[in-house]
Amino acid sequence: MFDKFNLTMLTDYYEITMANGYFETGMEDQIAYFDLYFRKVPDGGGYAIMAGLQQVIDYLENIEYTERDIEYLRSKGCFSEGFLEYLRNFKFSCDVWAIPEGTPVFPDEPLITVRGPVMQAQFIETMILLLINHQSLIATKASRIVRAASGRPVMEFGARRAHGAFAATNGARASYIAGCVGTACVAADEEFGIPAVGTMAHSWVQMFDSEYEAFKKFCEIYPNNATLLVDTYNVLRSGIPAAITVFKELDPPVKGIRLDSGDITYLSKEARKMLDDAGLKDCKIIVSNSLDEHTIRNAVYEGACIDVFGVGEKMITAKSDPVFGCVYKLAALEKDGRMIPKIKTSENTEKINNPGFKTVYRLFDKKTDKMLADVVMLRDEEAPSGEAYEIFDPKAIWKRKEITDYYAKELMVPIFKEGKCIYDRPRLDQIREFCIKQQDTLWDELKRFENPQTYYVDMSRKLWDLKNLMIERAR
Amino acid sequence: MFDKFNLTMLTDYYEITMANGYFETGMEDQIAYFDLYFRKVPDGGGYAIMAGLQQVIDYLENIEYTERDIEYLRSKGCFSEGFLEYLRNFKFSCDVWAIPEGTPVFPDEPLITVRGPVMQAQFIETMILLLINHQSLIATKASRIVRAASGRPVMEFGARRAHGAFAATNGARASYIAGCVGTACVAADEEFGIPAVGTMAHSWVQMFDSEYEAFKKFCEIYPNNATLLVDTYNVLRSGIPAAITVFKELDPPVKGIRLDSGDITYLSKEARKMLDDAGLKDCKIIVSNSLDEHTIRNAVYEGACIDVFGVGEKMITAKSDPVFGCVYKLAALEKDGRMIPKIKTSENTEKINNPGFKTVYRLFDKKTDKMLADVVMLRDEEAPSGEAYEIFDPKAIWKRKEITDYYAKELMVPIFKEGKCIYDRPRLDQIREFCIKQQDTLWDELKRFENPQTYYVDMSRKLWDLKNLMIERAR
Repeated sequence: MFDKFNLTMLTDYYEITMANGYFETGMEDQIAYFDLYFRKVPDGGGYAIMAGLQQVIDYLENIEYTERDIEYLRSKGCFSEGFLEYLRNFKFSCDVWAIPEGTPVFPDEPLITVRGPVMQAQFIETMILLLINHQSLIATKASRIVRAASGRPVMEFGARRAHGAFAATNGARASYIAGCVGTACVAADEEFGIPAVGTMAHSWVQMFDSEYEAFKKFCEIYPNNATLLVDTYNVLRSGIPAAITVFKELDPPVKGIRLDSGDITYLSKEARKMLDDAGLKDCKIIVSNSLDEHTIRNAVYEGACIDVFGVGEKMITAKSDPVFGCVYKLAALEKDGRMIPKIKTSENTEKINNPGFKTVYRLFDKKTDKMLADVVMLRDEEAPSGEAYEIFDPKAIWKRKEITDYYAKELMVPIFKEGKCIYDRPRLDQIREFCIKQQDTLWDELKRFENPQTYYVDMSRKLWDLKNLMIERAR
Repeated sequence: MFDKFNLTMLTDYYEITMANGYFETGMEDQIAYFDLYFRKVPDGGGYAIMAGLQQVIDYLENIEYTERDIEYLRSKGCFSEGFLEYLRNFKFSCDVWAIPEGTPVFPDEPLITVRGPVMQAQFIETMILLLINHQSLIATKASRIVRAASGRPVMEFGARRAHGAFAATNGARASYIAGCVGTACVAADEEFGIPAVGTMAHSWVQMFDSEYEAFKKFCEIYPNNATLLVDTYNVLRSGIPAAITVFKELDPPVKGIRLDSGDITYLSKEARKMLDDAGLKDCKIIVSNSLDEHTIRNAVYEGACIDVFGVGEKMITAKSDPVFGCVYKLAALEKDGRMIPKIKTSENTEKINNPGFKTVYRLFDKKTDKMLADVVMLRDEEAPSGEAYEIFDPKAIWKRKEITDYYAKELMVPIFKEGKCIYDRPRLDQIREFCIKQQDTLWDELKRFENPQTYYVDMSRKLWDLKNLMIERAR
C-alpha cells in the first residue's frame, strides 16, 4: 500500500500552478529565501520542541516525478510541456538551514530557512510544513506529559487513535525524542529502534476459562515480560488476586500488572497494598486510561502508586490542541547579487513576517547555563559575542533589558548545500538525549502548564528597523 | 520513503505477544468473533459517518511478513520458531462483515465484525482501528462543516497541518465522502480522483513588483483558473482594485478572488460590492482562514458574500475533538460448534461490550423514509419484518416505544469470506453520493450542532437478556 503513494506529489495544487507559472514567466532560476516558523505554542505552553527534520531530509533527498505523475499532470491540461520536462529531470538544488531536532523553540524565530530557485523552494512548502508541524506538535505535547510524570517512565500507546499510519510511526518517534521510554507500535521499533513494549489485551484474558489460567499461561510463555492486565472483570476482587496467585506460583523475574479503567489513584494504592502484603514489592504497576499531563500530574500529586504511565490518544493526537501552526513565508529575493527583503502585511498584524535572510542566536547565562533570550538577526550582522547586549521586546520596544555574563550559540545549522545533504545526522537516541538535556536549560517558569512566562524572542535592532520601514512603505 | 514501511508491522506489540501465546498454547485455530464499535460521537454530535473501509480491505488483502520482519521479531528473543514460520506463510482467512462507507452510524452498534482464527482476528486490531477511527473522525467532522455551509461548496485545504502523509491523503478522502467538493492535495487527486484545486500563495504576489503584475501574469497563464489571492498587502485598498483592473483588461472566463485573513463577513460584503460595481458579478469569492462549522455558520447567518469555503486545519485534524474512539472487543468464541458469548465487565460500565455474534437493522419510516431506530440483535434472531416492533432504551428499559409503518434494512454486509474479499467495492464518487443521500434520512433534530437528539440504538430483548445474565454471573 505504501508503494502506491509518492510523497513528491503530496503537495498543494497551488505549488504546482505557481511552479509552472514561474517557469512560463522565465523566473524559474530566480533565487528566493523562505522561512518556516510558528506563531504560538500549542496548549498555551512556554516552549515547543523542534522535531521532524530527519523526515524532511528524507523527503528532500527523494523528490522524484514518476512518469505516472507527469501523465497525471499533463491530464490537467494547463501545464506546459517544457515544465513537465523540467519536472521529469528535477534535481533538488537548494540550500537549507535548520534548528536541530530536540531543541526547545519559540514563536517567530525561523526553524528552517530554504534558499534556492523559487520553483523548488516554493514547491516543497506543503510537505516540509506537514512533517515539521506533525512531529513538533507531538514532541511538544509529549514533553508536557513526560514532565508531568516527574521522572516516572511514560510509554506511547496511541497507534489505534493516530490519524493514519505515519501519524502512528512518526508520532511514536516524536514522543520518544521528547522523553518517552518506549512505544506499543512495532513498526516504530522496526523502523526507528524505539523499544516496543506490550503484553496482553482483555481478549487474552477472555479466551481462557479464568483469569488465573490466562495469567499462568502468559507467565509461562513470557517470564521476562509478565505484565498482567487485571481489569477484565474486577480489579480488586478477581484480577489482582489471580495475578498474585500466579506470581507466587511461578515467580517470573519481571512482574507487573496493568490497570486500564477505573479511578487509577485509588486502584493503584489498593493494588500496591495487596501486592506488598503478598510480598510482591518488585511487581510494577502500569496504568493506561485516557491519560494526559493533567491526569498524570493529579495522580502524582495524590500519591498514586504508579510505576509506569502508558499514554495513548491524548498524546498521539495532541488532543487538547492538535494543530502546530508553522507557516512558510517568502523572506527575501536575490536580484543582481543584491538581497531584496520581502514582507506580507496582511489584515492580521500577527501574520506579518520578518523580512530578510536571518539566523537565530540563543543567549545562555554563564553561571547557570539557563537560556536567557533568543535573538533573530540578519545574517550580515555581527553575532552577540559576550559583550553586554541590549534586547528589547519587538511587540513593545520600550521593554528593554541589558544582558551580560552570557554566551551565545547559533541555533540554525547548515543542512543542505546546493541540494546535497551536508548535515551529520544524529541517531535517534542522540536526538532524544540532546532534547532531554536541552530542557534542563529552560527556567522552571517556562515549564509551567498554566500561564508560563513568555520567553524573550527578540529581533536585532537592524532587523526591527528594516521590518518597520517596510511596513510603513506598504501602507 | 513509503517503500520502507510495511503496514503489516504497524500493530501494537501486544498483538504479537498474544498471537505467539495462542500459537504456543495450541489455540491458534480457535474461532473467535470481534466487534469494532465506538461509544461516543465526537463534538457531542448526533451521528457519525462510517469511513475507511476501503483502506481496511487494502490492508487485509496485503498482510505479509517479509524476511526483514521475521528477522526483527526473532531478534526479540521471545517468539518461537514455529510461530515465525507460521507468520512467514501467513494467509488471512477470516470472515468480515461491515457497515458500508458513507453510512450514518451511532454508538454501541458493531461497525465491523471479524470471525476467524483468534491469532488472525486479534492481530489486525490495531490497524483496522487506526483506519476506521481516522477516516470516520474526519468524515464526521467534514459532515458538520459541509452542513454549516448550507449548500455552498466546501474545499479541503489542510494537508500542511495534517498528522502525517496519510492523514493528508486519507483525510482528503474522508472529507470528500462527507460532501466536500475538492481538495488542495495533489496526491489525493492522483490516488483517489478527488478534484484538486488551487491557484497561488502570497509568495506568488510578492515575487512581482506589484499585485497588478502578479495577477496579470497569472490570468494570462491560467485564464480558466483565475482565482487571485487579494490579501497580501491590503484587501480593499490594493488587492481587490488590482484584481478588478486585471479582470477588466483580460476578462478570463473563470474569475475569483480569495480572502485568507481579516473579518471574512465584512471583507466579503465589501468585496462583493466592489466587484459588482465593476460589473464583475461572475467573479466568485473564496474564503479560507481557520474556518470550521461555527465560523461558517456565523458567516452564512450574517449574510457573508462567500461562494466557496476552503477549510484547513480544523477539518483535517478534527481540531475540536480529534479522537474517534472505536474499540475492538472479543464478543464470542466457537467451541465444538457452539457459540460462547463473551463479555468484559471492567470498572467503567460504559466499557461493557455487547456479547455474541450480532448484526444491526435500521428501521425507516415508510412515509418519510427517515430513520427511526437501529436494533442490534443476535444473528440467530428473526429480523424485524415490518410487523409492529417494540424498541426500548437499553440504558433505561422502562422507556419503550412501538414502531409501526416501517421497513427494515440490515446495515452490515459481508466483506470477506474465508479471507477472500467478496464485496463489490463502490467507487469513491458512489460512496460520496450514497453518504449525501443517507444524510437526508436523518431527522433535523439529529443534525443540530448543540444538544442534538439521541438516536435510538436498541438491543433486541434476547441480546439484552443475554448481556444482563452475563453481567450478573460475572459479579
